[in-house]
Amino acid sequence: MRQAGAVSPGNVPVCYYGPGGRVPASLERRVRAAEVLLRCAACGLAVLAAALLGADRQTRVFFSIEKVARYTDMQSLVILVIANGVAACYSLIQCARCLVSIVRGGVLPLSRPLAWAIFSCDQVMAYIVISAVAAAMEAALIGKYGQPEFQWMKTCHLYKRFCAQAGGGVACAIAASANMVGVALLSAFNLFRLYGGGKAGATSGK
Amino acid sequence: MRQAGAVSPGNVPVCYYGPGGRVPASLERRVRAAEVLLRCAACGLAVLAAALLGADRQTRVFFSIEKVARYTDMQSLVILVIANGVAACYSLIQCARCLVSIVRGGVLPLSRPLAWAIFSCDQVMAYIVISAVAAAMEAALIGKYGQPEFQWMKTCHLYKRFCAQAGGGVACAIAASANMVGVALLSAFNLFRLYGGGKAGATSGK
Repeated sequence: MRQAGAVSPGNVPVCYYGPGGRVPASLERRVRAAEVLLRCAACGLAVLAAALLGADRQTRVFFSIEKVARYTDMQSLVILVIANGVAACYSLIQCARCLVSIVRGGVLPLSRPLAWAIFSCDQVMAYIVISAVAAAMEAALIGKYGQPEFQWMKTCHLYKRFCAQAGGGVACAIAASANMVGVALLSAFNLFRLYGGGKAGATSGK
Repeated sequence: MRQAGAVSPGNVPVCYYGPGGRVPASLERRVRAAEVLLRCAACGLAVLAAALLGADRQTRVFFSIEKVARYTDMQSLVILVIANGVAACYSLIQCARCLVSIVRGGVLPLSRPLAWAIFSCDQVMAYIVISAVAAAMEAALIGKYGQPEFQWMKTCHLYKRFCAQAGGGVACAIAASANMVGVALLSAFNLFRLYGGGKAGATSGK
């Protein structure tokens, strides 16, 4: 049986991972595969969101005055592009780490400091991306429907293509943030089970 | 020693919580106390945020036309008030549960289904409150600085008192959401250590 817990001398009981343990190696492999998939999907979606928003541009002429709508006109979209860019780079690095870890093998090779670092970064990234998405959605809704009480007129009827592409970008960012939340949950699982020893940890040590 | 893990017959090793364990009862009590404090603080701050925003109102007269600014004029503030109201009620209920659990005693009385339910609700609440705060901050920033590219004029110089009170409400909501994030992390810890059995779980079973 493969043992992931610390080897304890004498009669000190040990909690095992492995085919006979409560968290079998096959489940461990599935968790790892899910992590890689989620991180890859988050990376791809974040890149797509940033690309759609970054390349979004529409020119219109009003009474011989040319006006260009860009994502840089709206601070929340700029923040969303930056947040997605950072999330994509981070997910790519983490994806590579996961793949190296899988190739090298080992059922639970995470040390506590590394698990803490990954968990903290994942949590921060998830909250950053979700906050950026929420802020962008608020601005997008004002652009779409306006806020007449404050004389903030809707602008999407003037820049339809721009708004449609921005909507696609925000949708991709929402999907990316959902993946980041999944990743954050998985890394919480990977970290905090290192502190376990409850019901699930009580397994046969033979 | 008080045992939180499953009682296993014969020579099956058990992971213990307690004074001699890896997660001693004193630490367990501190975690519980921190959870109660965080939940109470989240409840208080969410109530304060909702009250500040809900009671926010300023009347101004422009060219003999009376205009009233209310939080209902801005959808994101309405959502923030609702989110904080729900978060306050939820935190109050959870706080009561924690206190009952402490009074009744027991080092780790959480069952897996209950821990999963609490963890899921805490995560959802944290993400909802953070999203609501981010959306409200975006609207508040547009109100404060405007968005000239879309002819969205700043309005805070017209309704200074309204904006100051709304800012206070948003600040309280930010503090409440920080507490909700802390609570979500604690409940992740409480859930996933039930799945543990790694290094930390290998403790003396005497």
